[in-house]
Amino acid sequence: MNTKTSKQTILNSEHYRTQESSHKTKIIDTSFRSSTLKDTNTSFTEATFNLSDYLAQRRYQVEAALEGSITSGYPEKLYESMRYSLMAGGKRLRPILCLASCELSGGALEMAMPTACALEMLHTMSLMHDDLPALDNDDYRRGKLTNHKVYGENIAILAGDALLPYAFEHIVVQTKGVPADRLLQVIAKLSHAVGARGLAGGQVADLESEKLQNLDLATLNFIHSHKTGALLEACVVSGALLVGANDEVLQRLSRYARNIGLAFQIIDDVLDITATKEQLGKTPGKDEKALKATYPSLLGIHESRFQAQKLIEEAKKELAPFERGLFLL
Amino acid sequence: MNTKTSKQTILNSEHYRTQESSHKTKIIDTSFRSSTLKDTNTSFTEATFNLSDYLAQRRYQVEAALEGSITSGYPEKLYESMRYSLMAGGKRLRPILCLASCELSGGALEMAMPTACALEMLHTMSLMHDDLPALDNDDYRRGKLTNHKVYGENIAILAGDALLPYAFEHIVVQTKGVPADRLLQVIAKLSHAVGARGLAGGQVADLESEKLQNLDLATLNFIHSHKTGALLEACVVSGALLVGANDEVLQRLSRYARNIGLAFQIIDDVLDITATKEQLGKTPGKDEKALKATYPSLLGIHESRFQAQKLIEEAKKELAPFERGLFLL
Repeated sequence: MNTKTSKQTILNSEHYRTQESSHKTKIIDTSFRSSTLKDTNTSFTEATFNLSDYLAQRRYQVEAALEGSITSGYPEKLYESMRYSLMAGGKRLRPILCLASCELSGGALEMAMPTACALEMLHTMSLMHDDLPALDNDDYRRGKLTNHKVYGENIAILAGDALLPYAFEHIVVQTKGVPADRLLQVIAKLSHAVGARGLAGGQVADLESEKLQNLDLATLNFIHSHKTGALLEACVVSGALLVGANDEVLQRLSRYARNIGLAFQIIDDVLDITATKEQLGKTPGKDEKALKATYPSLLGIHESRFQAQKLIEEAKKELAPFERGLFLL
Repeated sequence: MNTKTSKQTILNSEHYRTQESSHKTKIIDTSFRSSTLKDTNTSFTEATFNLSDYLAQRRYQVEAALEGSITSGYPEKLYESMRYSLMAGGKRLRPILCLASCELSGGALEMAMPTACALEMLHTMSLMHDDLPALDNDDYRRGKLTNHKVYGENIAILAGDALLPYAFEHIVVQTKGVPADRLLQVIAKLSHAVGARGLAGGQVADLESEKLQNLDLATLNFIHSHKTGALLEACVVSGALLVGANDEVLQRLSRYARNIGLAFQIIDDVLDITATKEQLGKTPGKDEKALKATYPSLLGIHESRFQAQKLIEEAKKELAPFERGLFLL
């Protein structure tokens, strides 16, 4: 089997399927800084492939690329604010999905790194604005003060407004070896994913739903498929777009990503009920306390788990042809 | 003389030079809706060229294009909020500058219309966020309630966040007949102009300057060249980029736009002191009341007028070769 095909494991749903039971151990050790990972061209063969190592290595590479993506400038406070949130850690799942999809489609990691960083910038700016007093009014994120608590609301708004276009500028200026028409497709995909028909639309639908007494499953699906699903899908599809993947590949990856995105959300809802604080790394029961409609509240825990499992199996089916070595360019 | 060359008049600084003395008549009659303007291909020859007619016609075309750029969708409130600010009127100076620059460089109007609309979307979202309580806290803009006063702060933030990426999506999806590499240059130009090294940077520098007792001329120039100048420059340059103008043309248009942008700001500051409420259409003396550093406060009125005039003359010089029919593709 081609070594490239083994890389599909990152896109394979095992990671998600096992998440519920193994949630107490962080997927990536944040202290991971092995010198062996400094070689950005290290590749994984089927024999050596280990998901944790793959995630840790790609995450390390993403951190390094993000570190270099925004340097300082005037006014300093703006750049500090942008960097504060962009470099605040996290799993870097979105950029890694983009890199993995590019590798799976036969592309080189370097082709996708600017887009991967751009995806993290878009994700970060959405969190910065989501944390604002006028929205979720959160004081902490990942154990650190939120951007507006450190820099003030005005700077947090403007730093988000600066990160968003910078994502697109970064793609155009930094991507090497990708034809212009493909880059335009990537830009269209990402801009769609964070706009009214994607992330922003999902956020507004979520805000609107808070006023409702009874939320139906269709609305809950709309919220999650837009608020988190659209950008996840853009991560997976953009990696393949950069390589010039054909329509069938793009469709398969799109369906894969949408199924996994929804399964992820369902499992997240279930964990909020079933997991302990130690397992979650955050206080459970938040949804119930906030009287928030969730999959378990609408379907029950058993049915929610069943639905998540079904979505994961459907997602895996989409990747089966990659495993058989088809679709490699 | 080629008819195209006469179109440089819109970019000619006469418009700005006469603005101070004729400010009581609005540059464009907002009720202008002549049926003769419905032909989007109407061109102006040197003999028939009239600046007011040109501006009115292009504005009408921009309004029509903006009207069609965002239709309704779910959640309705988000689309309503986006349209509320985008369709709130104004001179549409930024999109018109882009169209004029495209025409001047020998391009067809249609090539530049999606970029022209995108520029207005970017400008609009910056105003929506600038009006927020955490920033300028304005209740009214152009005689209408500001976005957050109608839809709430949360929606105003998210609608701005949705308009920004939509500008880029609109360029990619709607532009016809322009090679992909040129579109990428336009996207890089616009994203740079509204980011940390452009508009957002200027806004933060402006916020920071409010805390200072004494503002120097260099900082004042930085604020204006970034807060308003960068996007104006992007308007003028992007129109020529779409046509594939050469470096000399781009450099000339860039210098032209930067000079005119600064002259515009200086005149605006002078008018705040010298003009009446009737002439301005808004309350004068606002800067002095807010103890804001302005060009007249740093240079005096006489020197400010002299500097503005000098900038306008330098700007005109940049356009001289166009008048002689050079640079036409």
